[in-house]
Amino acid sequence: MKRRDFLAGAAAGAAVGAASTISSPAIAQNKRTLKMVTTWPKNFPGLGTGAARAAKRITDMSDGQLTVKLYAAGELVPALECFDAVSSGTADLYHGAEYYWQGKHKAFNFFTAVPFGLTAGEMDAWIHHGGGQELWDDLAADFNVKAFACGNTGVQMGGWFNKEINNVEDMKGLKIRMPGLGGEVLRKLGAAAVTIPGGEIFPSLQSGAIDATEWVGPWNDLAFGFYKVAKFYYYPGFHEPGSTLSCGVNLDVWKSLTPQHQEIIRNATMAENNYMMAEFNTRNGDSLDVLINKHGVQLRKFSDEVMTEIGKASGEVMREVAAEDEKTAKIFKSFTDFRKKAIRWSDMSDSAFWAARKLPFQYE
Amino acid sequence: MKRRDFLAGAAAGAAVGAASTISSPAIAQNKRTLKMVTTWPKNFPGLGTGAARAAKRITDMSDGQLTVKLYAAGELVPALECFDAVSSGTADLYHGAEYYWQGKHKAFNFFTAVPFGLTAGEMDAWIHHGGGQELWDDLAADFNVKAFACGNTGVQMGGWFNKEINNVEDMKGLKIRMPGLGGEVLRKLGAAAVTIPGGEIFPSLQSGAIDATEWVGPWNDLAFGFYKVAKFYYYPGFHEPGSTLSCGVNLDVWKSLTPQHQEIIRNATMAENNYMMAEFNTRNGDSLDVLINKHGVQLRKFSDEVMTEIGKASGEVMREVAAEDEKTAKIFKSFTDFRKKAIRWSDMSDSAFWAARKLPFQYE
Repeated sequence: MKRRDFLAGAAAGAAVGAASTISSPAIAQNKRTLKMVTTWPKNFPGLGTGAARAAKRITDMSDGQLTVKLYAAGELVPALECFDAVSSGTADLYHGAEYYWQGKHKAFNFFTAVPFGLTAGEMDAWIHHGGGQELWDDLAADFNVKAFACGNTGVQMGGWFNKEINNVEDMKGLKIRMPGLGGEVLRKLGAAAVTIPGGEIFPSLQSGAIDATEWVGPWNDLAFGFYKVAKFYYYPGFHEPGSTLSCGVNLDVWKSLTPQHQEIIRNATMAENNYMMAEFNTRNGDSLDVLINKHGVQLRKFSDEVMTEIGKASGEVMREVAAEDEKTAKIFKSFTDFRKKAIRWSDMSDSAFWAARKLPFQYE
Repeated sequence: MKRRDFLAGAAAGAAVGAASTISSPAIAQNKRTLKMVTTWPKNFPGLGTGAARAAKRITDMSDGQLTVKLYAAGELVPALECFDAVSSGTADLYHGAEYYWQGKHKAFNFFTAVPFGLTAGEMDAWIHHGGGQELWDDLAADFNVKAFACGNTGVQMGGWFNKEINNVEDMKGLKIRMPGLGGEVLRKLGAAAVTIPGGEIFPSLQSGAIDATEWVGPWNDLAFGFYKVAKFYYYPGFHEPGSTLSCGVNLDVWKSLTPQHQEIIRNATMAENNYMMAEFNTRNGDSLDVLINKHGVQLRKFSDEVMTEIGKASGEVMREVAAEDEKTAKIFKSFTDFRKKAIRWSDMSDSAFWAARKLPFQYE
């Protein structure tokens, strides 16, 4: 109810704003340029190109009345300052991933990915229909931001290693590139988890400064050439089962938009959310072919024993996160309640179907 | 290249049309009303409400310049005549499922679901990035239609039975409600597959006119009350692993739209595609709870033996479909090439992750 009142108020505010700025056909061609900063290098496959597509969707659907100008990481502000830039109004929109702002509030992690959390489809379900968006709105409003899901990488790979991981002891002492909560889990297991920006991973792995790394999945990992300096490619990634990307809007800017332009932004981000996930699924499948058949990469699956130990450590980390404060505890509860149902439904739907699809005698 | 030329031509045509109709601010408030016919009963959960949302997205984003008026099945034309209505221009848009038009061309099946085919995320990947949309455009253009993916039910359930299915012999002679290619598969196994509209299933099952039925999944099946007249609820559904809903536009209408309005329709359908799948995932999880805990429904999983036999029969049916004509063969090849990669990628990503997420000692 509270939220509905808030939204009604916002819509009314927008209508007032509209009356004084762009309601008359005579000045309908007044164009407003919005700055979108991003956490990605220019044209970075999937993520940077997805941000560019989201910007173009808004521009095209508003016939340029909202012209979104895109800035790659570092062009207007450094990657990790996108949130502050939008919060303060230096920029109007960002495209990034909410867990980059975990220094502002630990609860942001839940809107990207957490260890053993939700897959892409489950994240969409929780955000769109399971109460996630309302919790996100409440959290982001504290920072003068309104954010939407805007793309997904899907389940990430477990990472590149130069030795086999047969039990968690094998991870002890390894310097592994893994940021965020996943990194915290690995530290509990005795690994030295480090955070290194994408562009520095390859040389670090080559020089031996790090022993192993995760990045995203076959498509992005192939582009970085990790197969040249690491032998084993492990799956699945426990740390990011469905990394949701996000588009945040300065809340004052959001409230100043007409209902039409609000709908355009809402739908543009939702469309890109669908389109980017589809792109990762396609390119990951293609790139896996290249990695295996052209570059001789050796795939390895983490054993149930290893995953059970990682799961234990993940449970500890997640309970610590939940204990941060009241807001995080509330989000944790909503997330885990949803997760419980998701575990059962995935088991009966996609998971059961995929197992059946691998049986012999079908068609190809 | 051919397609690009075609699109460039269409855009140019649209621009010309725009110049003579709505380019000047003075007449920008001219509103165009588009009729959307649907194959669903009014406000039918998920499907009918999803169609209504898609219509509203277009209306809202165009600020009413394209006002989409929705007609439930039977209001303007009967459900299965939606395609003809849009093809001929009686209506401007439809929301339905392409396999309903398989009488026009068998290849339409591939754009909804086929036995042991692709899941929702995989369908999106094939359509958006794997060549599916281009093949669909080519097929639909023969009928003066341009269609988009616009929603998904996800993996459907295997169906409601009053006896256990321990081997395929148990299906022999059973009258099972299952339309389309799934029905053809069951007929090969000796079952009497029949097609009955949604509203007639419950009385047919109650009276014993049919022995078993599939419908959609927990959310929709709970609404129809099948648990009152059938004991066992089987999973997974082999016949519709990711039923894609669609929004078709009369091709002349499509070409007459400005690039802005084309983008609005393209993004509105893509957003709804994301939103509806998320809704089914959420409501199916919730409804499963109710079916099991409130109504005491007994879940049963089809055994690998049963699924292998169904897979064999599905292979036969699919090869027969592929042999229909050159266009279907081409679509079948694109679909199955994609399917091969999807089988491997799902195995390493979501499927492997879900298996790991079920291990003990995580969190809830």
